[in-house]
Order: sequence, then structure tokens, then C-alpha cells
Amino acid sequence: MTPAQPSPAAPTPVLPGRRATFGADRPMRLDCGIELGPFTVAWQTYGELNRDRSNAILACHALTGDQFLAEAHPITGKPGWWSEMVGPGRPLDTDRYFVICANVLGGCMGTTGPKEINPATGRPWGLDFPVITIGDMVRAQKLLIDRLGIEKLFCVIGGSMGGMQVLQWASSYPERVFCAVPIATAARHSAQNIAFHEVGRQAIMADPDWCGGDYQRHGRRPSGGLAVARMAAHITYLSEKALHRKFGRNLQDRQNVTYGFDADFQVESYLRHQGSTFVERFDANSYLYITRAMDYFDLAAEHGGVLANAFRDTPVRFCLVSFTSDWLFPTAESRQVVHALNAVAANVSFVEIESDKGHDAFLLDEPEFAATLSGFLNGCAEHRGLV
Amino acid sequence: MTPAQPSPAAPTPVLPGRRATFGADRPMRLDCGIELGPFTVAWQTYGELNRDRSNAILACHALTGDQFLAEAHPITGKPGWWSEMVGPGRPLDTDRYFVICANVLGGCMGTTGPKEINPATGRPWGLDFPVITIGDMVRAQKLLIDRLGIEKLFCVIGGSMGGMQVLQWASSYPERVFCAVPIATAARHSAQNIAFHEVGRQAIMADPDWCGGDYQRHGRRPSGGLAVARMAAHITYLSEKALHRKFGRNLQDRQNVTYGFDADFQVESYLRHQGSTFVERFDANSYLYITRAMDYFDLAAEHGGVLANAFRDTPVRFCLVSFTSDWLFPTAESRQVVHALNAVAANVSFVEIESDKGHDAFLLDEPEFAATLSGFLNGCAEHRGLV
Repeated sequence: MTPAQPSPAAPTPVLPGRRATFGADRPMRLDCGIELGPFTVAWQTYGELNRDRSNAILACHALTGDQFLAEAHPITGKPGWWSEMVGPGRPLDTDRYFVICANVLGGCMGTTGPKEINPATGRPWGLDFPVITIGDMVRAQKLLIDRLGIEKLFCVIGGSMGGMQVLQWASSYPERVFCAVPIATAARHSAQNIAFHEVGRQAIMADPDWCGGDYQRHGRRPSGGLAVARMAAHITYLSEKALHRKFGRNLQDRQNVTYGFDADFQVESYLRHQGSTFVERFDANSYLYITRAMDYFDLAAEHGGVLANAFRDTPVRFCLVSFTSDWLFPTAESRQVVHALNAVAANVSFVEIESDKGHDAFLLDEPEFAATLSGFLNGCAEHRGLV
Repeated sequence: MTPAQPSPAAPTPVLPGRRATFGADRPMRLDCGIELGPFTVAWQTYGELNRDRSNAILACHALTGDQFLAEAHPITGKPGWWSEMVGPGRPLDTDRYFVICANVLGGCMGTTGPKEINPATGRPWGLDFPVITIGDMVRAQKLLIDRLGIEKLFCVIGGSMGGMQVLQWASSYPERVFCAVPIATAARHSAQNIAFHEVGRQAIMADPDWCGGDYQRHGRRPSGGLAVARMAAHITYLSEKALHRKFGRNLQDRQNVTYGFDADFQVESYLRHQGSTFVERFDANSYLYITRAMDYFDLAAEHGGVLANAFRDTPVRFCLVSFTSDWLFPTAESRQVVHALNAVAANVSFVEIESDKGHDAFLLDEPEFAATLSGFLNGCAEHRGLV
């Protein structure tokens, strides 16, 4: 990372995958009141849709995720973020289910977001892009599901911000969801989490290459600021214990400290790497918009301050999952959702999984987590008549 | 905060207070091997030294603290950082004790650090300043205590990085310390804490106004980067619960969210304020050096990896204090020190104080904490014959 160097704009890679356009005739009304259209949703699928169109699973990605959940990432070449869970014989078994994942509205992997061209001006949206919400993301996904002719999703599933979308789906379109799996998430973003997001945004906006959000037109990229934002966020995705186990105070390729500001410690080197690789695949303005959407998320507030009202008479079967060492979305947050679901006598199960891997546990090979997903999906598939 | 604007160099204020110069004839050897001298230590005192010179308490400040612990800060005008604990009738009772506090080596409040003039070049040290350690800070304090003719400090006390200095004092100069109070601290900096520090350093170094550390000569200040560093660190000083109680999801002077990137939430506004006021009183390079000193701290490593060896045959009476909601220096870290002290049959008491205020609890009005300090100091004063 050479943060003090001006970062040239990267050539926009032509991303592979599916695209659908919406809102050309009738724009979509966003929560902020602005009408958006036309706009594009980029999406991928894994497995085959059955004849009844009853085996579709919508997987919702997290803040920095994307639609390439079970295949090599087109920019980094790394395995998809949920390769552990999605594939033949895996919990989201692509021999049985048709798994759909769409890049969220405001994202930077093909779905319309601040780096795409504003059709009204012919220039990148930048900060003229309207601020979107989790509700808006879900609205856009719903248009895609309509287009695919899927009347009822078998399952909506996702972790972190993906879990927020799951809760929003179940609340907004309960008749369109058979079962829902919100993982390591919350019904509203906490003060501490808003604070961490604000640090990330300030790091980006403090970078002179951000150019007031207009960096694309200036041929620049606020890579230094975005890398710092990622580094700060990355710490929150892990647990103290995991960092200690993985790195402790081990030195990086040296026997003694150097009495300088190089990355003496492995944990420093690791973090710098996280920052510098992230900026290759992510757009800084998208980071601002998507963190903002998470901050604004407060499902109870949409229902008179009573979370249970978001799920009244819900037919959806829920399985909530949290992880013991997740301090970003701690178990208490999931428990609040469970209490609200219990208050409306919803069909809900809740599993807290013992793990020292922190928030990121939902992306990792956690056998108990995999078994939980398999078990719940198998049971629901039986009820749904998927055999 | 207008981070994208170039920040002019602030005029260096003439700071009040006491100064002592050391190392003019015989330089001080630092842990990195460099000989430093002459150098200045800036210090303040509260109360009167008794005739026996037996009532001196050395209070050690934390990362962003300074020597003005019980009086108005000369730059901000705010009360000293330990006004709650130091003063007539307070736990560190200035009617009984002579309280000394010195700005640490590498600091920016008068003690020699990177913003001061390097006598060899006539220019500010900048990154030519040698990387210092907690051991070096304590060595410099020891020279001051020698100069004051104090053979044995009644007490060395401090929280966070101040607590690291307390542990170092007790280990390096056990015969010079009657009792020691390490608060909310650790015998080595954890991987997670190193990681947070590295984020802060990267934020500073990513600011083009940092100029490779040479900003003073260029008439600049990396205020944007330093503010981001402070914001990230500030979150770690609080607890999730305290943030929730204090701010929750309350909006700042508005009824509804604005669908923009203003500080809609009170917690954002608060954090921005923390960042922008901090840069008025602190030097960015000092922030690099002092965080580095904390990262390097590992008392066991100096003693063959066995922490107990740091305290073998110690005559010092210890009282360790931790706070339940402190996740930066959690109770487990204090407990490790207690175990090491127990292993060498030291005189040690340990109090974990119930508080939801996080790491910063040691700076705040916590009655149980105040009572703990008073009780321990009173008992030690009796043993020391201070009546």
C-alpha cells in the first residue's frame, strides 16, 4: 500500500454474469422518495429451477460481498464468499436447490450504484446517486424474483447485512417466502456499529483523491482512505481470541522488532494486505452508500417502534443463527428478533453456535453451522414437498 | 472537520509548566540502541513534597494524556484528565501526597518528541526521532525522580499505557517504589490492540499532509488522518452498552434521517467532534511513536518469556484494577499479571470494578473505583508511616 501516492482510476473491468433491467417504464420509488429507473440488477444462479419453481433460495450478500458466491471471483480469482455452504452436497445443495444471488442496489459489481452511469447525465452517479436502504435493496430483488416467475421463494438466507435483507424480505413479503434464515444479524444497527461505519466513511472522505465523491471524473481513486476503512472494519469481523490464536505478537519475517513503522507484527502485515487487496475490487462510494443503508436499518421503527409488528401473522418459518464470539452482531441482537417472533407465535428456531472466529464465522468452515443449515433446510424442504 | 482541505501548521503554543533537561553530559541509552541527549522532560506537580520526601506519587499518563492531570489544560481549557481522582480530599489527596506527572518521552506537550527540535540539525525531529519504548519512558521519568532527590516513590499509578509504565517501574526499579497501582492495563499489548493502533497509524500516514512525517517543515498538518485515527481509537475506549445508553440510534437535531452523509446520528456527531478537537492538541507523529511504544510492550519477553520473572523478590505492594466492560484491556489481562505476582508471592490485591463505561472508566467518576484507590493508598500510607 502506498497511500500517499495519487491513485489512478482503475479501468472498469467488464464483469461477467447475468443482468436484468427494471424501472424503464415505471421507476421504482425509493425510501428517500426518489424514483429510480431504469436500473440494472446483476445476478448469478447455481443449480436448476425445478418445474414448480418451488426450490429457489435467495442468498443475500453482506456489505462487501457480491453475487459470485459459489464461483471464482471475476476480479480476484478467489473462491466465492460462500463456497463453503453452496454447491453439490453442501448445505445449500445445488443438486436440490436453485440458488440466486444478486448484487445489492448501490453495489459495484454490476448492479446500479454510484459508480455506474446516470442515464440522465451520461456521467457516473457519484454522490448524485440517491441514498438507498435495506428496504430498497429488497425491493429491487423482489422485481428480479417477479421477473423469474418465482411466486414463492423456498428460502431467503444471508449473514450480517444479508441477514438484514432476510428480515426485511420476511417482513415486507411474507407470502413470498417459505422459510427465512437470518444469520449473525440484527433488526437495527447498533450505535457502536454506526460509529465504526462512520470512521470508515470519514477515512474515505478525508482522502483528497475522493474529490468530493467525483473521483471517477477526475481519474482518481481514494485507495488510501478505502484501505483504512477496510482495515478498521476487518478488525470488527474477527474476535480478539481469533487474532490472538492466528497472530498473537508474532513478528513478520524477522527475529526482532525493527524500532520503526514497518509492519513488524504479522497482524499489521495481515491488515495492510486486507486493505490493499480490498481496494482492487471495491468502489469507495459504494462503501459509503452500503454502510449508510445498514446504519439506517431499523425494522421496528417502520412498525411503530414494536419489532413484533413487523412479523404479525407471519407464515414464514424462521431459523436464526448467531456465533458466541461475534461482537459486531452479538447473540443478544438475534435474541431480540427471536423474542419479537415469539410474541407473534411465529415458527422460529434459534441456534447460537460456539465459535471463536467472530462475526466472520458465517463465511468459514464451521461444521456445527453447516449442520444447522442442512438440518433446517431439510426439514423445511420436507414441509414444502421438495423431495 | 473539513478533511479534504490542506491543514496549515498550527503555531506552536508556548506551554506553561516545569521543564528539566537531561542527558546533556551523558546521553540516555534507549532500547533501540540510540543514545539520546540532551532531552527535556516537561512535568507538573500537585501538593507538597514532605520533609522525608516520602509522600511522592508518580502518576503516569495514557496514550493521549499529558502532565496537566489536575488543572485546566493549557490548550483546550478543559479540566485535567484525572481531576476526578487528584486534589484535596480526593483519592490522590494533594493535602497528603505530592503528585508528580511528566509528559512521556515522544510526547507533544513539552517533553522531547518528534515535533521538537533535533539539536543535531536545528530542525524538527520528525521521523528521525528514535522509536522509543515504555522502558525508555520510564528511564526518563527515573532521571526526573533522581533529580528531585526522591529515593523511594510512595506510589506509581496509572491507567492504560500509564499502567504499562507502572508495571515497568515496579519491574525495573523495585527498590524505588513502595506501592504500585496498574489500572486497566496489560503486561503486553494484544494482537487486537496492535491492529487498532496500526489502523490509526495508516490513517495518519495515508494523509498527504503527513508529508512522510515531515509536515512541520512543509507548514502542513495531517489533521484529517489524525482525526480518523482518534475516531477509531475512541470507539475502543467505550463500551457497546455505554454507546447505546448515551446515544442509541438518536438523531442529531433532526426528526428524520436526511438520506445523506451528514452526521444524522448523535453518535456520528460525537465521534466527529472527538476527532476534530483532538487534532488541536495532539501531534500526529507523537501519535505514531506512542502507539508504537505500546505495541512493543511485552514485559515477559524481557524476562525469558516468563512474566513472573519480571517481579521476582519484589518488595512492591500491588493493587490491580480492571473494569468489567473494558474490552481494550479486559480483566483477563490484569489477571495474568496477578497470576505472575502470585507466583512470586508478591503482596497483591486485585479489584474488578463493575462498570458499563468501558476502558475510559478509569478517567470517570466511578465511586467504587475511587473507594478502591483511597482504601489501598490509605493502607499503604499507614505502612509507610505517612500520617
